[in-house]
Amino acid sequence: METLSTATAFGGTQGVYRHASTATGTDMTFSVYVPPHAPGAKLPVVWYLSGLTCTHANVTEKGEFRRACAELGLIFVAPDTSPRGEGVADDPDGAYDFGLGAGFYVDATEEPFARHYKMWTYVTEELPALIGAEFPADMDRQSIMGHSMGGHGALTIGLTFPDRFRAASAFAPIVAPSQVPWGQKALGGYLGDDTASWRRHDAVALIEDGARIDALLVDQGAADSFLEKELRPDLLRAACSDAGIDLTLTLRDGYDHSYYFISTFMADHLHWHAARLNGEGAA
Amino acid sequence: METLSTATAFGGTQGVYRHASTATGTDMTFSVYVPPHAPGAKLPVVWYLSGLTCTHANVTEKGEFRRACAELGLIFVAPDTSPRGEGVADDPDGAYDFGLGAGFYVDATEEPFARHYKMWTYVTEELPALIGAEFPADMDRQSIMGHSMGGHGALTIGLTFPDRFRAASAFAPIVAPSQVPWGQKALGGYLGDDTASWRRHDAVALIEDGARIDALLVDQGAADSFLEKELRPDLLRAACSDAGIDLTLTLRDGYDHSYYFISTFMADHLHWHAARLNGEGAA
Repeated sequence: METLSTATAFGGTQGVYRHASTATGTDMTFSVYVPPHAPGAKLPVVWYLSGLTCTHANVTEKGEFRRACAELGLIFVAPDTSPRGEGVADDPDGAYDFGLGAGFYVDATEEPFARHYKMWTYVTEELPALIGAEFPADMDRQSIMGHSMGGHGALTIGLTFPDRFRAASAFAPIVAPSQVPWGQKALGGYLGDDTASWRRHDAVALIEDGARIDALLVDQGAADSFLEKELRPDLLRAACSDAGIDLTLTLRDGYDHSYYFISTFMADHLHWHAARLNGEGAA
Repeated sequence: METLSTATAFGGTQGVYRHASTATGTDMTFSVYVPPHAPGAKLPVVWYLSGLTCTHANVTEKGEFRRACAELGLIFVAPDTSPRGEGVADDPDGAYDFGLGAGFYVDATEEPFARHYKMWTYVTEELPALIGAEFPADMDRQSIMGHSMGGHGALTIGLTFPDRFRAASAFAPIVAPSQVPWGQKALGGYLGDDTASWRRHDAVALIEDGARIDALLVDQGAADSFLEKELRPDLLRAACSDAGIDLTLTLRDGYDHSYYFISTFMADHLHWHAARLNGEGAA
């Protein structure tokens, strides 16, 4: 692991790192904020998965998570959203919603994407092992959140590993990719036409198929231009209602899809996560 | 005035605007955050002047000022750092520390810069008039802060108009441009070789020449790579001590010159400003 930069912030250290990923077969860059802590302490880890077009840098610069992480003693990890570099296939038209910056947190099975697009394995196996080895992380206390495509990732990963993640939350998530254009393009392109293989990468389908988690927190901007076509929080509300999952879904008047929305509610989410990570149960 | 974008954030509105400036003879872009407020209310205004290479966007995206501004009821205005556009002269070598992105908050008298580089008039006259006309601003309650070159601007403007600005503070300011390379290049290039004309654009010289202000707040990263060569807070400390100005200057161990430093201490500065803007005197 190579350190690209570090800076002191809110008493802790914001770093950006790069390593050669065996999962993706590329170099991968990610950021980690480690809050101030006592020597030898092991701290809970919050994963943040970013949305379409983003790298680790967007939330690192605009997410406004460090004050709350410093107060609450949380490590904050932000991976990239796809493999990158020479030889990594992209959308044939260079579209923003597939290929580079749009890995959708799946392991692609379709060529030419199967070679490098292994974001599921990268985010759920390889990077956690690296974080556990290189940072003062208590890997028995992890939680996960994300935005848009990354909200999709956070919900599907949280629902798949409910024993690993004590909390899962999302800002404006794609809750049912099988039913919306962004998701249909991505899951079809990465996983092929057999929609049965899509279900474990679709939060609503996972819940319908029996996946459970204690609670979910979702904030959604009511002025988000992607709300009705791509995000469809109503589908998550119905699935959670049917399954008896405690979903706190709040529509926020006036808010759009941007980091102005995310940063506004970031501290609320981190407090919600911290209450679960610190063993206090539902806050 | 043209609205380029608006977004809801922390209950208020973050906007980016453009207008044709008569001072600079160019279009100028700036950002304004208006916090949530009662209909008809007039709110105090905090000016934030940015540093070398920046536009309005750096602090708008990375400054983490909105939560505190929303809590304290402060309008936050971030101008650009120079004129821009076709026909605007730049550093002949394209250096980052002069010309575009480096207006140094002076009215240039030297050609070819005298035509457009009128940032003093722009920031102290033209833009305040526009803010007062277009936003719910109480122009009897203004304060000013800035970073690096913008810290220089905030200190010199605050010292020049102590009756207009109830508070002035800075992050890692250039306190004595006449005595450091960045400042000597800029003041010489914009104002010419007669160093007497530089003194009203040098905070330390202004204080030596009799300018006074009730109090100044300065934070400076101890790991700032520009500390000893360009920033020299010791010179401000000595001048304030001699003049009896109440300077709170804190060296922050481990912090560099970046927005990771600024964002960490932004809320502290805004609370300090709010105490003065809301008529409570020194906090």
